[in-house]
Amino acid sequence: MKIYGDSISGNCLKVKWTADFLGIPYDWVETDVVRAETRTPEFLALNPAGQVPAVVLDDGRPLAQSNAIMLHLAEGSRLIPEDAYDRARMFEWLFWEQYSHEPYVAVARFQVKYLGRPAAELEPKIVDRGRAALQRLEDALAEKPFLVGEAPTLADVALVAYTRVADEGGFDLAAYPALQAWIDRVERALGIAAAEAA
Amino acid sequence: MKIYGDSISGNCLKVKWTADFLGIPYDWVETDVVRAETRTPEFLALNPAGQVPAVVLDDGRPLAQSNAIMLHLAEGSRLIPEDAYDRARMFEWLFWEQYSHEPYVAVARFQVKYLGRPAAELEPKIVDRGRAALQRLEDALAEKPFLVGEAPTLADVALVAYTRVADEGGFDLAAYPALQAWIDRVERALGIAAAEAA
Repeated sequence: MKIYGDSISGNCLKVKWTADFLGIPYDWVETDVVRAETRTPEFLALNPAGQVPAVVLDDGRPLAQSNAIMLHLAEGSRLIPEDAYDRARMFEWLFWEQYSHEPYVAVARFQVKYLGRPAAELEPKIVDRGRAALQRLEDALAEKPFLVGEAPTLADVALVAYTRVADEGGFDLAAYPALQAWIDRVERALGIAAAEAA
Repeated sequence: MKIYGDSISGNCLKVKWTADFLGIPYDWVETDVVRAETRTPEFLALNPAGQVPAVVLDDGRPLAQSNAIMLHLAEGSRLIPEDAYDRARMFEWLFWEQYSHEPYVAVARFQVKYLGRPAAELEPKIVDRGRAALQRLEDALAEKPFLVGEAPTLADVALVAYTRVADEGGFDLAAYPALQAWIDRVERALGIAAAEAA
């Protein structure tokens, strides 16, 4: 399998961490978003949405969307709950992540860290909704170790990706103690080195 | 099962259509987004994200996020492909819908039809990305009947919901002939009355 990804992107790291955790071999093809390497004709033939991550499976077929790739790689593994309701809750978190978390928490970080925009000049909607997303996670994790059940699932993989670096977008993680403890727990469970470029 | 939904919301209709198609009984609890009925303490206890649709399953447990609910209801049905790669492509479309289609095509319609904003005054980013999403669907459907395989899947249910009413947000569906033919095909396959309030 080839993973086309940008190492600064949490969406891409999700796929890498899932493959690493499950022992699935891959070649990583570094694809620079800022330099528009996702907009070349070759890349658009692979993923018409022009986004990383995208993978080419061993049989040559392409697949895109970070959470769809993770689901495919993790099928039948312990990262997807066997119980139907727990699995449904995992899906709920995966879709919430892409709709209500990533567009604020990840976008703030991208604008601040990679486009050089001062955090104080972020669009208020991005800041407000990013904080709301972090608070929702804080509330959800106040009394349980992982988002669904007693062990990490793809919901934790997806949501830790940008939450662990939210401070780079101007969010103060010190305000969310349960979230900080969960980040440590997920990083340890997945074997994500704290020093990993993210 | 109780479905809490707003009849003007494509996200809510997705769940209704899936249940209707599969013959799953439910009580519909009309929940008015514009009047903020999703922000009451009672509703937030059901779905802390404050969004419809949300369901309460027969055993009393809640579930939110339109695509997660559809996946739960449709498990084991013909709306989810048996082939692992086809299923992965269905997931790719479902996540793309929530990230790259709904925030533009649905938001434009909401602002124009329900908040009274003239289409000409929509934020250019919403219009441009909405058109890009519709064009991507047009391209994908130029040579095949449904988004994945030869029969409708949850990808079609999810994407038809706001695409069929995109003109209400100022998009000109006449510019997308393959998309129009697909809308008719999906509406017929799912038994969605063309006259249904959407």
